[in-house]
Amino acid sequence: MRQVSIVGIGQTKAGEHWERSLRDLASDAILAALKDAHAEKVDALYVGNMLSGELTAQQHLGTLIADWAGLGGVEAIRVEAADASGAAAVRLGYLGVASGVQDVVVVCGVEKTTDADAETTTAAWSAGTDAEYEAFQGLTMPAMAGLLMRRYMQEFGVGREDLAPFAVNAHKNGANNPNAMFRSTISVETFMKGGMLADPIGMFDAAPLCDGAAAVVLCAGERARDLGGRPVRILASAMATDRLALHSRRDPLFLHAAYLSALKAYEQAGVGPREIGLFELHDAFTVMAALSLEACGFADRGQGTRLAKDGEIGLQGRIPLSSMGGLKARGHPIGATGVYQIVELAQQLRGEAGANQVQAHLGMAQSLGGSGATAVTHILGA
Amino acid sequence: MRQVSIVGIGQTKAGEHWERSLRDLASDAILAALKDAHAEKVDALYVGNMLSGELTAQQHLGTLIADWAGLGGVEAIRVEAADASGAAAVRLGYLGVASGVQDVVVVCGVEKTTDADAETTTAAWSAGTDAEYEAFQGLTMPAMAGLLMRRYMQEFGVGREDLAPFAVNAHKNGANNPNAMFRSTISVETFMKGGMLADPIGMFDAAPLCDGAAAVVLCAGERARDLGGRPVRILASAMATDRLALHSRRDPLFLHAAYLSALKAYEQAGVGPREIGLFELHDAFTVMAALSLEACGFADRGQGTRLAKDGEIGLQGRIPLSSMGGLKARGHPIGATGVYQIVELAQQLRGEAGANQVQAHLGMAQSLGGSGATAVTHILGA
Repeated sequence: MRQVSIVGIGQTKAGEHWERSLRDLASDAILAALKDAHAEKVDALYVGNMLSGELTAQQHLGTLIADWAGLGGVEAIRVEAADASGAAAVRLGYLGVASGVQDVVVVCGVEKTTDADAETTTAAWSAGTDAEYEAFQGLTMPAMAGLLMRRYMQEFGVGREDLAPFAVNAHKNGANNPNAMFRSTISVETFMKGGMLADPIGMFDAAPLCDGAAAVVLCAGERARDLGGRPVRILASAMATDRLALHSRRDPLFLHAAYLSALKAYEQAGVGPREIGLFELHDAFTVMAALSLEACGFADRGQGTRLAKDGEIGLQGRIPLSSMGGLKARGHPIGATGVYQIVELAQQLRGEAGANQVQAHLGMAQSLGGSGATAVTHILGA
Repeated sequence: MRQVSIVGIGQTKAGEHWERSLRDLASDAILAALKDAHAEKVDALYVGNMLSGELTAQQHLGTLIADWAGLGGVEAIRVEAADASGAAAVRLGYLGVASGVQDVVVVCGVEKTTDADAETTTAAWSAGTDAEYEAFQGLTMPAMAGLLMRRYMQEFGVGREDLAPFAVNAHKNGANNPNAMFRSTISVETFMKGGMLADPIGMFDAAPLCDGAAAVVLCAGERARDLGGRPVRILASAMATDRLALHSRRDPLFLHAAYLSALKAYEQAGVGPREIGLFELHDAFTVMAALSLEACGFADRGQGTRLAKDGEIGLQGRIPLSSMGGLKARGHPIGATGVYQIVELAQQLRGEAGANQVQAHLGMAQSLGGSGATAVTHILGA
């Protein structure tokens, strides 16, 4: 098994791209990443995407994007794991290079939601739940998160305002990220005043779905120097799953897949949560941020909000979260999000995060699919 | 890079499964394959599927099926490459084991088309073309094949009846396969009388879409003996792509992706077409069988039908094709087909093909996505 490094990164702005199609967004990110890596030829393309079949009547994205980006004949596969599609694509790129079968691969996450109306998108997004038992009852993703948040508040005596710091922090960081969808800070007061989406999930608990594409070039460690990019090492790559339906889980407030994949990643990298200097987590809803912190060993059960309250999740805190805006402020282009997280972590570890620069040598990214049924965790090192 | 072997196979019947849902079909095939391999624990699940989002409003299939099949927490990813989704999943399972990251993986291809009406399915299937330039003009998959077949007939002076032997051969072999959808033989006369789907594609040129699931268990060569199954070695695994849209290809009658992936596979296995004793090819339409034979070096340009006419594609011929019925008679459960091909090749190499047994030590399977824009080729050895 070979060491794998990230030698190139690229991204489009996350947001509403009315004038660009899915293939354009993906190609923009890929070409930027290849340029950054000084790479011209790759051995494979992995594309993470969830909804292009439902929203744009286009599948077969691996080949479409390889064709459009001019990668000429290269092996190309599309990967889907609901919201974690992008991170799963990174995982497969990692396996391709680690195996020795592929030397240089490019991984792209892309989603285009503005080609369909919001109702269609919301319905399609709920295909990440157990459709026959959850979506068919009318449960959308915000509704699923609402069930979790209500139970969390009840079980641990937490109020809505206790979750506010996750959103406030994300928006503060997003304000300095030129690729973020939302670049305004918000106050706790604004947070509390947001309209309800799925009680108790308010507008500022939820990340916005949007368009976007991000890409990374991976290569074998020994070749990283030849390619001229500033390499960031992938110290661990791990994935795990849980029961898909919320009602099947013994304890819905414990994200077992997040726990398992983090555990495997810690073992592979030979570190624990103490050594992790920043954490790009899956803050699709504020309650998911709290649950992730607990599952990954950064906080005890029911104590995830305390870290946020104590200011420990800011750029200078004990464990900076969502350092470039997270899903909440950068935006959540569903199948692209997992790759954005890796790109942003690489920006931080390369010292290219601008006003949001965190001093850290070790960072972790964790992407969740559905209501936490899939988790992909990567640990990167400078 | 480690040697990879197939140590377990499983399949449901291909056909119309009105009483079984997608998750049931997939679990049936997976549990059969695990039983065949005497394996209880796997490190990962790869699921090949094209249309479950569009046809059953269910995505996130990796996790759903891992959950339903009782694989408890295992890493699980869904893979899509249009009609080649199943073969692409086999390719990723191969990479996972070859890399040393995973020791035992299960790969499942599954499709459920009877949950939607035929028009919805036909429209969804065309998402494997370049949707903005082809499907949006009303081009379905049979229509795309019709364009290719008309051009083939014109360019090489071939008649419709010259393509008949591919269908006749497939139906003859399917008659002896208990898992095939169609188990009746057909004559050239029946073939010629079939109604037109998309002139010149007649009913008997086209494989039927259907439901089905197939699964294989892969493990590292050195562990194959421990697991108790009869191992079949994967001697080569290769994938390539072409321009997605037919009109973008320099020569639409040359399947460049099929050629490239076969070339890579021959190199990896250290063999050529002469050494291949049987070939499970992508006979979604008769003309595709002819084009595949030519692209893979079994026939000269425009001569693919001659092999068929000379009786060389039968079970006792020079290069037996579609030995268990192929897509044409076994049925084409889109995202499952690539795994069915591997299962059937393994049946042959294990000497378990019953009345259709071919005497061969080396077999090749090739799965195509869209109108040949993606090709995945595997060479297996007894």
